[in-house]
Formats: sequence, structure tokens, C-alpha cells
Amino acid sequence: MNVTFVSPFLSSIMNVLSTMAQMEAKAGKPFYKKNKIAHGAVTGIIGMVGKQTRGTLAISFTEPAILEITKRMLGEEETGINETVIDMTGEITNMVTGGAKNLLTEQGYKFDMATPTVISGKDHVVNHKSGTPVIVVPFKTEAGDFFIEICFED
Amino acid sequence: MNVTFVSPFLSSIMNVLSTMAQMEAKAGKPFYKKNKIAHGAVTGIIGMVGKQTRGTLAISFTEPAILEITKRMLGEEETGINETVIDMTGEITNMVTGGAKNLLTEQGYKFDMATPTVISGKDHVVNHKSGTPVIVVPFKTEAGDFFIEICFED
Repeated sequence: MNVTFVSPFLSSIMNVLSTMAQMEAKAGKPFYKKNKIAHGAVTGIIGMVGKQTRGTLAISFTEPAILEITKRMLGEEETGINETVIDMTGEITNMVTGGAKNLLTEQGYKFDMATPTVISGKDHVVNHKSGTPVIVVPFKTEAGDFFIEICFED
Repeated sequence: MNVTFVSPFLSSIMNVLSTMAQMEAKAGKPFYKKNKIAHGAVTGIIGMVGKQTRGTLAISFTEPAILEITKRMLGEEETGINETVIDMTGEITNMVTGGAKNLLTEQGYKFDMATPTVISGKDHVVNHKSGTPVIVVPFKTEAGDFFIEICFED
């Protein structure tokens, strides 16, 4: 996998959270996904297809993180992973991928996005089947953690 | 959602199962997805992007169905949803979408496929976020049931 693809997604999520939720997110050390368990309580997934490459992005939020983001973005206090929180996860996945798409287009990589899917349910397991390693980038916020998983075929 | 998109996926899964697993699958009455719980124990998801439309396909297999399909396709007897079964689910999702893509191309609808993602974990919930209703088609086989979920933006 071309690591050029990773950085635009990281910039994009930090930008989305700071502008839409006034929340600072700090990226930790990236690692290759070995254990297949999603790290969060709710995961947004989106497929991407371009001439040069294709792949998937997953953003997995812990419950405290997505509840606080939902509160800041909508002004609504939710108490668990409900329809509102699931919609918010889908929206964020869309916005982050859209932002990364713009950055990658500037670098000459063009791709189109499918519609997002949001997975919830305790201990759900997300397996990316692209034949290439999956890079996970952990993020810390004052409200809790979230994780970005990126995999692109070469 | 244009219902023209549904039928090629149904033909394709029946074709994949009959040729690769010598298994007959019978489609039941389609319904709109209301309850968000995935019906199966393991779900393959793939994003699709074309000029005219974009969307996602999910195939959710009950455990007995996917174990029997794996046994017939690989000759391996698995006892639960493990790496082999997850890989098989991803492969079937890919093959079914590839087959439907060929049929839809003949009808003038061109799209490209992202890489598949496979979700497992008890009671995982799959929410398609396309803004259009999700059509579910239940299938029966001698080994157990599976479900196809299709959603395309207009």
C-alpha cells in the first residue's frame, strides 16, 4: 500500500473535528492491523474506487468519543449508540473521505466514493479484504479515542 | 432506488453458489430493511461507484449456510466463523458483485467496485447510509438462510 494515501485522511479528520466539533484530535503512532476486532463501538466504512487504486476507509469511534462529538455537532446529548449517533458516524465518514479526496486529487490521485455503511453491535469485527496490509492510526481526544483504518490496493 | 439494479445481484449469487458450491438458493419475497440488525453471523459489504449511481451491497450469511458453502467450495469442515470463513465471505461478495457488474454493464449501467469488507461479531448491525431505502432479499438453501441487502442512490 502506498503510504501517500494515509496522511490526507489524517489531516481531513482533524480538520472535520476541529471545524465542526471544536475538538482537537491527536494522532498516535500508526500500526498494522493484526487483531481484527474493531476498536470502537461504532464504525463508519466507505469504499473508494479510482483508476490508480481502490480501497476502504473505516473510522471506529469509542462510545465516549462519538457521544461527545455528536453533542458538540448537534447540541444533542445522547446516552448510547442510537440512530442519531449512527447517522453522525456516517456523516463524519463521508466528510473525512470527501476532504481526503480533495487533497489526493491535488496530488494527482483521483477516486470516487461509494455510500458509507455504519456498523454497530458489541465486539463487531471489521476485516478489510484487499490483500494488502491495513494501517491503523489511533487518535486521542479529550473525550475519548477513535481509530482510522486505511487500506488501498497497489 | 432503481429496482433494475436488484435482479442482476440475485442471478449472480444463484449462479456463484450453483457453479462453485453445487448449491441451489431460492429467493424469497424482497422487503425494505427496517430493523437494522444484520440477519446473519457474517456479512460481506462492498461499495460500488458509477457515473449514474453509487451504492453498497451486503450479503449476510447465517452460520450454517456459510459453513456448508465453505465446506463445498474448499472441502474444509470449519466449526465456526474463523479466518477461512471470513475470507470465503469476502470472496463470494466479490464474485457476486463482479457477476452483477457484468450483467448491469450489458444493460448500460457501468460501475466500479471497491474492495470488500467482512463484518463478524454476534448481533452486528449494518446501517447503509445512502439516503434511499435498502432492499433485502432473503434466500433459502438446504443448509440455511442468507440475505442480500442492496442500496443504490438515484
